[in-house]
Amino acid sequence: MFSRKSPTHVSKRLAIGVAALVAALAPTLAYAEEVEYLTQSNGNILWTLIAACLVMLMQAGFACVEAGFTRAKSAGNIMMKNFLDFSAGSLVFFLFGFAVMFGLDAGGFIGTSGYMLGGVAESDIMWTYTFWFFQSVFAATAATIVSGGMAERTKFGSYIIVSIVITGLIYPISGHWAWGSLWLGDDGAGWLEGLGFCDFAGSSVVHSVGGWVALAGALVLGPRVGKYSEDGKAKAIPGHNIPLAGLGVFLLWFGWFGFNPGSTTTADNTIGLIAMNTSLAAAGGVLGAMFISWFRYGKPDISMTMNGALAGLVGITAPCATVTPGASILIGLIAGLLVVLSIEFIDKVLKIDDPVGASSVHGVCGAWGTIAAGLFNVDGGLFYGGGMAQLGVQLIGVGVFFIWAFGAGYILMSAVKAIFGIRVKKEEELKGLDIAEHGSESYNGFQLFSNE
Amino acid sequence: MFSRKSPTHVSKRLAIGVAALVAALAPTLAYAEEVEYLTQSNGNILWTLIAACLVMLMQAGFACVEAGFTRAKSAGNIMMKNFLDFSAGSLVFFLFGFAVMFGLDAGGFIGTSGYMLGGVAESDIMWTYTFWFFQSVFAATAATIVSGGMAERTKFGSYIIVSIVITGLIYPISGHWAWGSLWLGDDGAGWLEGLGFCDFAGSSVVHSVGGWVALAGALVLGPRVGKYSEDGKAKAIPGHNIPLAGLGVFLLWFGWFGFNPGSTTTADNTIGLIAMNTSLAAAGGVLGAMFISWFRYGKPDISMTMNGALAGLVGITAPCATVTPGASILIGLIAGLLVVLSIEFIDKVLKIDDPVGASSVHGVCGAWGTIAAGLFNVDGGLFYGGGMAQLGVQLIGVGVFFIWAFGAGYILMSAVKAIFGIRVKKEEELKGLDIAEHGSESYNGFQLFSNE
Amino acid sequence: MFSRKSPTHVSKRLAIGVAALVAALAPTLAYAEEVEYLTQSNGNILWTLIAACLVMLMQAGFACVEAGFTRAKSAGNIMMKNFLDFSAGSLVFFLFGFAVMFGLDAGGFIGTSGYMLGGVAESDIMWTYTFWFFQSVFAATAATIVSGGMAERTKFGSYIIVSIVITGLIYPISGHWAWGSLWLGDDGAGWLEGLGFCDFAGSSVVHSVGGWVALAGALVLGPRVGKYSEDGKAKAIPGHNIPLAGLGVFLLWFGWFGFNPGSTTTADNTIGLIAMNTSLAAAGGVLGAMFISWFRYGKPDISMTMNGALAGLVGITAPCATVTPGASILIGLIAGLLVVLSIEFIDKVLKIDDPVGASSVHGVCGAWGTIAAGLFNVDGGLFYGGGMAQLGVQLIGVGVFFIWAFGAGYILMSAVKAIFGIRVKKEEELKGLDIAEHGSESYNGFQLFSNE
Repeated sequence: MFSRKSPTHVSKRLAIGVAALVAALAPTLAYAEEVEYLTQSNGNILWTLIAACLVMLMQAGFACVEAGFTRAKSAGNIMMKNFLDFSAGSLVFFLFGFAVMFGLDAGGFIGTSGYMLGGVAESDIMWTYTFWFFQSVFAATAATIVSGGMAERTKFGSYIIVSIVITGLIYPISGHWAWGSLWLGDDGAGWLEGLGFCDFAGSSVVHSVGGWVALAGALVLGPRVGKYSEDGKAKAIPGHNIPLAGLGVFLLWFGWFGFNPGSTTTADNTIGLIAMNTSLAAAGGVLGAMFISWFRYGKPDISMTMNGALAGLVGITAPCATVTPGASILIGLIAGLLVVLSIEFIDKVLKIDDPVGASSVHGVCGAWGTIAAGLFNVDGGLFYGGGMAQLGVQLIGVGVFFIWAFGAGYILMSAVKAIFGIRVKKEEELKGLDIAEHGSESYNGFQLFSNE
Repeated sequence: MFSRKSPTHVSKRLAIGVAALVAALAPTLAYAEEVEYLTQSNGNILWTLIAACLVMLMQAGFACVEAGFTRAKSAGNIMMKNFLDFSAGSLVFFLFGFAVMFGLDAGGFIGTSGYMLGGVAESDIMWTYTFWFFQSVFAATAATIVSGGMAERTKFGSYIIVSIVITGLIYPISGHWAWGSLWLGDDGAGWLEGLGFCDFAGSSVVHSVGGWVALAGALVLGPRVGKYSEDGKAKAIPGHNIPLAGLGVFLLWFGWFGFNPGSTTTADNTIGLIAMNTSLAAAGGVLGAMFISWFRYGKPDISMTMNGALAGLVGITAPCATVTPGASILIGLIAGLLVVLSIEFIDKVLKIDDPVGASSVHGVCGAWGTIAAGLFNVDGGLFYGGGMAQLGVQLIGVGVFFIWAFGAGYILMSAVKAIFGIRVKKEEELKGLDIAEHGSESYNGFQLFSNE
Repeated sequence: MFSRKSPTHVSKRLAIGVAALVAALAPTLAYAEEVEYLTQSNGNILWTLIAACLVMLMQAGFACVEAGFTRAKSAGNIMMKNFLDFSAGSLVFFLFGFAVMFGLDAGGFIGTSGYMLGGVAESDIMWTYTFWFFQSVFAATAATIVSGGMAERTKFGSYIIVSIVITGLIYPISGHWAWGSLWLGDDGAGWLEGLGFCDFAGSSVVHSVGGWVALAGALVLGPRVGKYSEDGKAKAIPGHNIPLAGLGVFLLWFGWFGFNPGSTTTADNTIGLIAMNTSLAAAGGVLGAMFISWFRYGKPDISMTMNGALAGLVGITAPCATVTPGASILIGLIAGLLVVLSIEFIDKVLKIDDPVGASSVHGVCGAWGTIAAGLFNVDGGLFYGGGMAQLGVQLIGVGVFFIWAFGAGYILMSAVKAIFGIRVKKEEELKGLDIAEHGSESYNGFQLFSNE
């Protein structure tokens, strides 16, 4: 109730009223802002965690593909390697891999803080847990890729060392170069990021790195017994369980919808495009590999077609957020063609025995995907009027990751070979790694042909 | 600080103050509204994308079920067909299937815009990407259903054509009738929608359509060699890998929680009921099929029980959002009984060789689910005092989808048969499609009995 | 436009203006609050539903692990038991299990309301549907654990009764003691909750209960034919499909990211830590079991390593939300050691034939996880200065759940044995349960060695 007062009093009241309203208003605005912030940050945690789960399931996919595409006598060993990759990998990535990849940058080359997530500010810790989980399943993916190239002849004990060095050093160091800033911002930025390198979800960072280390491993190990005849002709060693491999490919495909869209680590509206691009590129990869194998061999080849799906997925991983759906189909299609030609080339010309084609699927198609980002990116790609700038940086990345991963991988494998031995004895390989390395068989009760 | 001023000045200040406050207040309200809008629309994208991923994994489930329920000698071919369905399907659905299904309506019969998502407004495009992804995995489901009915004897090259026509025309046209408005609202609405047809997640649109095309395919192809003895007696041809089939059923069940609750395409509070109904109907289907097979054959039949789970899931797909949990159990139970009787009927009376029971699981139980929506819908169902109105429309839908899908499927299959041939040679079928069509085997190293 | 007015008029205008503004402001605040509430509650439903889907997929994982670790001749029977567990379990949990577990408390011992979700307030029903779905997949998990301990010799008809009693009574009653308040708050609280018992996601409630009932089942059934030689020496009966078992373990691992983080039933920022802890404990379990089996048997054992993953996951289930990542590694590592020792002890010393080690993985490691919460909980754990209080309650829980679950399980199994018979005939067991109980085989076309 206002009583009669002088204008001055009125003015004072007015001032008080306005101040009160502004005071009342400010928290409402602040509250709405806080609602938005909390909602978005909880949404980001939710989405990143779910995406991480999908990526985690890719471990199952890799295990099924690798086991299915190789022989029954080492299938259990392959499962063991995959369990080891994820387990030792998670531990190592917690102890130091994460710090090497995302910690405070030293010279653009390596991260240096966050060992065991130490020293993280209270306000960042909840996000960091989620982010760590997402990144740990990526790290495990890089190691698992290598497992495929080294299948059916690697000593299990030596493989443990290989796996740990990949997840703890080779992968996080290269990861730092391209993605170092993802956790601490500019304080963690690596040198390739500074150049504007585009590898949204890891065609290079994860897949090429894994593929090139796999190539080094396959080279140092040498081919499986019986893979090449005395005159050097490659002999196909077909997989023992194609439905298992096919299921594995579907599981990988499914998991890739965490891998690519999840790399936003943000529950925003861009994830739909990324998922669509991912899906179309995989479709393109299947069709590309199917038709080129049909053309070359007279029949549509099953394992090539399955590798085509993975090739398309690897290819779209770098450019998935920055290209059109139409370009995604093309990128996948080319990846599908490339993977078939590359598998033949590595198998028949280089005479390197990569049992599941890991170096072609992940190495070659990862490089292709990285280049594709320089060609098809809507903003900066060569075909979209961006000139050579983006493409140039992409080519630098492709070259640098090859030199680093193949080189470090070669040194690692050679060192393990020299110190511990890397390959089982010939008679162990003939018996199969299940018996030789683990004292058990994978298919008890089934009559198997004895493999030579 | 207010200095002494005349009332007029005070009034002016007051006016300014109030105006300022209103100005400040309006954006706060607008801001809260925007927060709500953005949160909800991002939530919808997130949920729809995750649901689409679950549905995508159903491709793996279908592949495992179809491979597991048939013979080892064609298992790789079955994986190939499933990779092809999803890949060619995604591509075709991008090029024109989506436009045919959801584009601007022409006469209630067909959509006519949105080819390659062209012409979509900027403000709609992010949602459209997600929506397309969700719908593309539905389209691929329809094609994959057909694959099962045509297993073990179809030429792979001819199957490609069949698959493309299903995903690009047969499915989207019927989809337009019932779901045309889901993208453009009334501008895209098909004729069945106008009648009030209820098929929430696609008992008819996806499953019956797929099932009836599968029936047409099985009919045109004719039975597998050895399926019927000379006196016309049906011989069971048991599947080669029951654990694989069982895993496939679980994967389908899992994916169905994307299929049904995801069909809200909205992250609202109704998804829990839909998930619960879906779960209970599947449970009912398992029990229904298990007990009726126990009663009829003396033992609870494994493959019938597995088909019972799928039957329950197909049955609840139309009414999942509009019935009670109790009704869901009943709908599933009846679906489980129906699928056993229908498989026997088609196998023994119609003498059509549908190797995995696709026409019974998806065709018959899809029709049942569509009818069940007319019986059990809480709002409008016959058993809930709604009279015959809803049920009548449902019956129209069931009839129309049978005529369309079986008819179009029969014409398609017959045309492919006439032009390219649809069935492999007898000796190829005996060897198995893996060798005949792809030049490889699925289980290298395993000793298999040679199948006659 | 303000005309010249007396101060009084100005004051009145001011009063009106302020009142109007306050009136306008209040709904804005309320609106922002409502946005927050709706967003959070929809987010909770979304997250809980997705987590439930992941847990549901654990059914597939359990089926694969159990089938893979046992012989080919009963693989189909194992799939059947798993379908039955989930189906009958869902139904029974709808009819009364949920009410027994979460309904209005009677004496701290049992819940008494919510049969078929009856009597739920309108405002709670949407949440209740989601919550029921999440809890139903937990209930089915408890039953499925038991299936493993009873593999390869249990009558299918008798197993149905066992499964129903577990999901409908044994599990919900013990669940009520520890989690009764999760639905109705204090009105539903059980006696163990009152003591401050900590079992966040169910190391005891789900896993130990399942494991101890499995132990009772294995004991009452007796060992499989040929498991122990005449002098009482245990003979290993190796599994028939190790890749299938490995895939199953990965599926369980994946599903556990719904099981543990999902047990928040809230889309908040704590889920990242829980997921990270879950992942690290599983990794620890793999490494613990792998190295101890290597040490004891001379080679890293495949099935022990796989059980190590599950052991770590079971172990972290109780303390996952309340311990550090470092502690999680340790908890998992110890679980991995324990599971190997426990499997040997039960197999060789107790001479109880638990074909897949269910009592060790779920019973023993569930007990360990429950104790670990008393040791490592950041707030209240013995190693964090909390003294014996928390640990004491945890030990009470461990003891009580053993007595209840093993006791009730033993009575149940003995009663079923007395009334219906619980074990198939010896010749049926030798033929395998697929033929004996279901009249079919799981691997048609494969040449199998006849198992003695």
